[in-house]
Amino acid sequence: MYSVTRPDYRLYLVTDREIIGSKSFYASIEQAIDGGVTFLQLREKSISSREFYQLAQSVKKIAVRFNIPLVINDRLDIALAVDADGVHVGQSDLPVEVARQLLGPNKIIGVSASQVDEALAAEQGGADYLGVGAIFPTGTKTDARLVSLTELEKIKQIVNIPVVAIGGINEENAAAVMDTGIDGISVVSAILAKENTKQASAKLLEIIRKTRNEK
Amino acid sequence: MYSVTRPDYRLYLVTDREIIGSKSFYASIEQAIDGGVTFLQLREKSISSREFYQLAQSVKKIAVRFNIPLVINDRLDIALAVDADGVHVGQSDLPVEVARQLLGPNKIIGVSASQVDEALAAEQGGADYLGVGAIFPTGTKTDARLVSLTELEKIKQIVNIPVVAIGGINEENAAAVMDTGIDGISVVSAILAKENTKQASAKLLEIIRKTRNEK
Repeated sequence: MYSVTRPDYRLYLVTDREIIGSKSFYASIEQAIDGGVTFLQLREKSISSREFYQLAQSVKKIAVRFNIPLVINDRLDIALAVDADGVHVGQSDLPVEVARQLLGPNKIIGVSASQVDEALAAEQGGADYLGVGAIFPTGTKTDARLVSLTELEKIKQIVNIPVVAIGGINEENAAAVMDTGIDGISVVSAILAKENTKQASAKLLEIIRKTRNEK
Repeated sequence: MYSVTRPDYRLYLVTDREIIGSKSFYASIEQAIDGGVTFLQLREKSISSREFYQLAQSVKKIAVRFNIPLVINDRLDIALAVDADGVHVGQSDLPVEVARQLLGPNKIIGVSASQVDEALAAEQGGADYLGVGAIFPTGTKTDARLVSLTELEKIKQIVNIPVVAIGGINEENAAAVMDTGIDGISVVSAILAKENTKQASAKLLEIIRKTRNEK
């Protein structure tokens, strides 16, 4: 059983149905987990609450079956409705303190941060982990501020909670990002835009494991 | 103190910031309540969760000060975050059963219904009241199915929970709508598009009271 108190953040997949194209959303996710994804975030923006709820119910079943944690982006009500493992909130979402109060101590709360002060405030407010980025320019979130590897390393050194990097990370740059000492990388396109999501995940996890000297 | 178990649904205001134009949102609402609004729903569609939360905090303060109930449209997390009196869910929002489970027995849950079967399902699922419409074509919700006064009356007769009618209701047609035996009317433009929201509310409440033979 995975641990909610110490989740495995090494290969963190954020879903994006638009990027998957004509492939089956659920099959792509299942294969990605099969390949090595260790943590799942369901992100939806233009969708009704009913559709989001139904989608989250289905993804929750996959997460349970594969035994990995699932957090919901932004929508705490959807997370509660499907009993997800937690939420991921950005700086424009509910404040982390409010999320913590509503979810209690046993749910995972992640917070997006792109600066040291945001990182410290999130940790102080009760975040379990940070999603830091965008490390590289990314097509899936074009308005994101860029965070250099030096800044990423600084954030990792200054906080005591796990740090996951996000934004334009792929097979080519993953090792350099991991070498800053962070706990994992978060990807969308590097897995979901690939024809074979299992193979893409396996390759990324292999790179991550090498940087961590894991056998 | 107003009663959450028996709220006063007679004049139910749904907010729409776009319709208010250059006037102050909060002042318009306060004046509308001062004029006679008995129930408040905060509805926002294109807004970040953080902004929705902050807006809801402010409107909650107004509702508390004027001692009327406040429900949040769709977003159960925002309702929880500001401890609103409840939520109003449409057919594309979280199912009423899920909302009831998450909010518990002491919060108000309203459900939009435009047909007898939706009305019965909502009552069965734990709704406290129904919002039935659209009664007349309306600019604030252009995709709404129209419900005739005969259908409205039928729904009111078949359910045991309060029924509020919505959609294009104004000073001219309010009496005819109330004459179907329903519990209140819900408006957006008929109050918020008016220069003087206090006067508009007072006039509507007067019409409603007359149809109910209230002195």
